[in-house]
Amino acid sequence: MAGNDNTVREPGRYAYDGLERLLHERARLSILASLAAHADGLLFNDLKSLCSLSDGNLSRQLQTLHEAGLVEVWKGFKKNRPQTLCRISEEGRRRFLEYVTVLENVIADAARQKPAAASDGNHLPRGVAPT
Amino acid sequence: MAGNDNTVREPGRYAYDGLERLLHERARLSILASLAAHADGLLFNDLKSLCSLSDGNLSRQLQTLHEAGLVEVWKGFKKNRPQTLCRISEEGRRRFLEYVTVLENVIADAARQKPAAASDGNHLPRGVAPT
Repeated sequence: MAGNDNTVREPGRYAYDGLERLLHERARLSILASLAAHADGLLFNDLKSLCSLSDGNLSRQLQTLHEAGLVEVWKGFKKNRPQTLCRISEEGRRRFLEYVTVLENVIADAARQKPAAASDGNHLPRGVAPT
Repeated sequence: MAGNDNTVREPGRYAYDGLERLLHERARLSILASLAAHADGLLFNDLKSLCSLSDGNLSRQLQTLHEAGLVEVWKGFKKNRPQTLCRISEEGRRRFLEYVTVLENVIADAARQKPAAASDGNHLPRGVAPT
């Protein structure tokens, strides 16, 4: 019967507190994953392409991540043209790896799920009716 | 040098389009993971506890997921008290598993990352300076 599972007695069992919005938001997750995979950094335009983000959105998200200390932003020139180089900070790498550990828990939970029940309502508790 | 990696030539490589906001938002992800692990459904209060959500937030998120067809919401009585039973729908389970597949890609990408570079800027391209 519903509600009799042991895990129901573990408050917050599926709260996933580690999925903090700063890293979990898709655009920022995308940026951090790109930069984590490129330790030497990525030029703004390459990062934009890898993440499929607009100039404006990437700029905004980079600023947020920079202010939080998760990424470094470097201004310079390459072939006489101004360039922006983005790199994950040590703190950013640490926080990203912690975040990924929580994702692994989500996946482990999903892997443990029971097979889908029939959805005809026949095994619902007595007196329970669909809304 | 930054920007010379092969993956830079794959636009959208880290865009993770499958992380759609409907499922990716933490409270809703928490609800779906709980329900996926309890195929027979969970009573509202048990779900609230497992996800560490307030009554109001859980109600709102359930309504969003219900409207999207990902969860079923059943009203009934148990021991003469009105109860709400929540259950993941077949569509919800399918979408959740698709979502988890994308999470697995994020983790695989994170596992492939190179070791952190030194952060003293010594290997930056010529002319690049910190902001």
